Amino acid sequence: MDRSRLEAFSDGVFAVAITLLALNFVVDGPVRGHNHLLHDLGLLWPSFLAYLVSFFMIGIIWVNHHVLVRAIRTVDRTLLFLNLVLLLFVVLIPFATSTVARYKLASTLDGRVSVAFYAAVFFGMSLGFSAIFEWTLHGERMHQPLPPEQHWPARIRFVSGGLVYLVAFGVALLNAVASFVIIAVVAVYYIFERTPPASTRAQGTDATLE
Amino acid sequence: MDRSRLEAFSDGVFAVAITLLALNFVVDGPVRGHNHLLHDLGLLWPSFLAYLVSFFMIGIIWVNHHVLVRAIRTVDRTLLFLNLVLLLFVVLIPFATSTVARYKLASTLDGRVSVAFYAAVFFGMSLGFSAIFEWTLHGERMHQPLPPEQHWPARIRFVSGGLVYLVAFGVALLNAVASFVIIAVVAVYYIFERTPPASTRAQGTDATLE
Amino acid sequence: MDRSRLEAFSDGVFAVAITLLALNFVVDGPVRGHNHLLHDLGLLWPSFLAYLVSFFMIGIIWVNHHVLVRAIRTVDRTLLFLNLVLLLFVVLIPFATSTVARYKLASTLDGRVSVAFYAAVFFGMSLGFSAIFEWTLHGERMHQPLPPEQHWPARIRFVSGGLVYLVAFGVALLNAVASFVIIAVVAVYYIFERTPPASTRAQGTDATLE
Amino acid sequence: MDRSRLEAFSDGVFAVAITLLALNFVVDGPVRGHNHLLHDLGLLWPSFLAYLVSFFMIGIIWVNHHVLVRAIRTVDRTLLFLNLVLLLFVVLIPFATSTVARYKLASTLDGRVSVAFYAAVFFGMSLGFSAIFEWTLHGERMHQPLPPEQHWPARIRFVSGGLVYLVAFGVALLNAVASFVIIAVVAVYYIFERTPPASTRAQGTDATLE
Repeated sequence: MDRSRLEAFSDGVFAVAITLLALNFVVDGPVRGHNHLLHDLGLLWPSFLAYLVSFFMIGIIWVNHHVLVRAIRTVDRTLLFLNLVLLLFVVLIPFATSTVARYKLASTLDGRVSVAFYAAVFFGMSLGFSAIFEWTLHGERMHQPLPPEQHWPARIRFVSGGLVYLVAFGVALLNAVASFVIIAVVAVYYIFERTPPASTRAQGTDATLE
Repeated sequence: MDRSRLEAFSDGVFAVAITLLALNFVVDGPVRGHNHLLHDLGLLWPSFLAYLVSFFMIGIIWVNHHVLVRAIRTVDRTLLFLNLVLLLFVVLIPFATSTVARYKLASTLDGRVSVAFYAAVFFGMSLGFSAIFEWTLHGERMHQPLPPEQHWPARIRFVSGGLVYLVAFGVALLNAVASFVIIAVVAVYYIFERTPPASTRAQGTDATLE
Repeated sequence: MDRSRLEAFSDGVFAVAITLLALNFVVDGPVRGHNHLLHDLGLLWPSFLAYLVSFFMIGIIWVNHHVLVRAIRTVDRTLLFLNLVLLLFVVLIPFATSTVARYKLASTLDGRVSVAFYAAVFFGMSLGFSAIFEWTLHGERMHQPLPPEQHWPARIRFVSGGLVYLVAFGVALLNAVASFVIIAVVAVYYIFERTPPASTRAQGTDATLE
Repeated sequence: MDRSRLEAFSDGVFAVAITLLALNFVVDGPVRGHNHLLHDLGLLWPSFLAYLVSFFMIGIIWVNHHVLVRAIRTVDRTLLFLNLVLLLFVVLIPFATSTVARYKLASTLDGRVSVAFYAAVFFGMSLGFSAIFEWTLHGERMHQPLPPEQHWPARIRFVSGGLVYLVAFGVALLNAVASFVIIAVVAVYYIFERTPPASTRAQGTDATLE
């Protein structure tokens, strides 16, 4: 089996999930009298903020998924199911996003729980990613297998990405805003940084993403 | 007609259906006072459980669809419509999942009916799959046609997969939890087992999915 | 521009529209007391019936779109927009379906209007299809252009397909059930019949879909 | 990285967004007595009008995205994220459309705000498009790079497209209908006109879309 249908299915899930993010936006309509729309749109600021961060998070996951999958030589049943684990958490992102938006990053227990749930979904996603990465390290599964001495450095870089979400989960229990800022900073960081496997391999031969 | 657009359309339907599963998750928001989100998320456990099983069931159907379709040499109008019958039931899975989640596997008549309906949808899906499989057995439709003496063993393996859902349907009328456990076990079984056509053919030449 | 992205986009729209059909299914949940689910599922019969017909209608449109588009040699801007006109009506099918289901094919004015609207959406879709077909008749747009003497017979077959929906629209104003039956019969007919352009060209050289 | 997965993901988002436009259509059902459906469908005219304009706007964005992306030689990380910025606004179109439909182009402040928001979403989309276009002007990123002396004329044509939405935004604050008409006219204009980059390059060698 070649990679194309794995990519097609995953891209479909990413595309639907990223578009469903916008279902969180609702205004109540003109039933409440005049001159309320501007106010209503203003009240949606937590939705717009959460939308912005989640949109780029899904976009980043898509880009990194892309980089990782195209370096794979053979697709087996194990990879398909590890990929499903990753997608299981991607599909939860719109729900987690709407929950964060609903509780408006408030300092209440509910506000903190909502961001903790949001961080937990990203942590689960990163576990799925790490499992796929671990799978790529063994056998003849990559076009250009990482040399064994680079396995541990690459693993550490990969896992440390996931640990940030664990930290954000812990911080959320204390402060919703601080936790959300951590996740937003991760998103901005990944927009400007290459992913570990891409940059690691780039040292050997050439940039995989040019 | 080559297989690519059949695959693209089917992958689209699988991707949308698997993502719509998450539309079942809703929390009521902060209108009911403070400190309820953790409680609300806890109340969603039947939704999370049904989501988990349905997500992997759709994932398995996708993988098996993949294995079956890529072994096909010629696509005709009959195959397109048998494929539609399969998708007809796949598209019902999110509704059946939300119905199961809503009745929380209760021992009431409603709880049992909800799981029976869930099992019935999977049984219909398996009939669609069996019809496609039967179609592949005739003429020059496969790249490597099964030898005739393997038709009946392969049919029996295929149909017995579908019979499990019929059993689950019957059990549901007596006990919702037991029926749901049967379906979940089928999902776990298929994650670790190859599909009949793949393993059968693998004996002849080579693994179709490796 | 090759056809592939036109097909990918159209397949995406077909896949989402066919999957959204199932959003019509909703049960009210256990709030209304025990032992109601079987009754509620029974009340959904108009939804299941409308789902079944619309599902196969979208499936047929997808198959015929497939047959028509793959015979096209060059894609230009005009074709892209004629294709959008077709999709404009395809995207309305889930709404039209839910409207029919909601009014349960009743003999009231509302029931008749709902089926008339349903027929009107299919008529608009068939106009979009006819426009694409007309576009294929001119210039060097097809791999195997129809000989001019076959233009009018092919047009008549194509338009007569669309006229059935116009008839169904008229009948709907008198009788909702009769009109719905006409549309369902068209769906069954197209499942077993090849589309005009495919069968016409098949006489010349070979089956386009086999 | 080749362009195919960028196109597949973008096409998925376009397809889902264009199909979600139809979720705005809802009729209340038969609970309000008889003979109301025709009236209810009539009340949906702002929804149908906004659907029509937004459907062709997304269709046009898709076509132009197509033309621009297929002229690209190398895909890098920057392009992927500029593409995400474009999609960020595309995904907001169904929400903006439903807001316009809800306030029915009324001359109230709410009606004007709703169209201003609609225009703002298209302006953001055009900024994303312009950023992608600017990216294509540098380095060896295109199959047939624009000669430097054509950069400024092409930029001016591109930016002037975006300025129309800024004008529509300003006009919306005075008159909702006038602003909506401007946007609708832009849609009609783009249906009949080639995009600037396509026509500019067409002067050099050949039509990029024929």
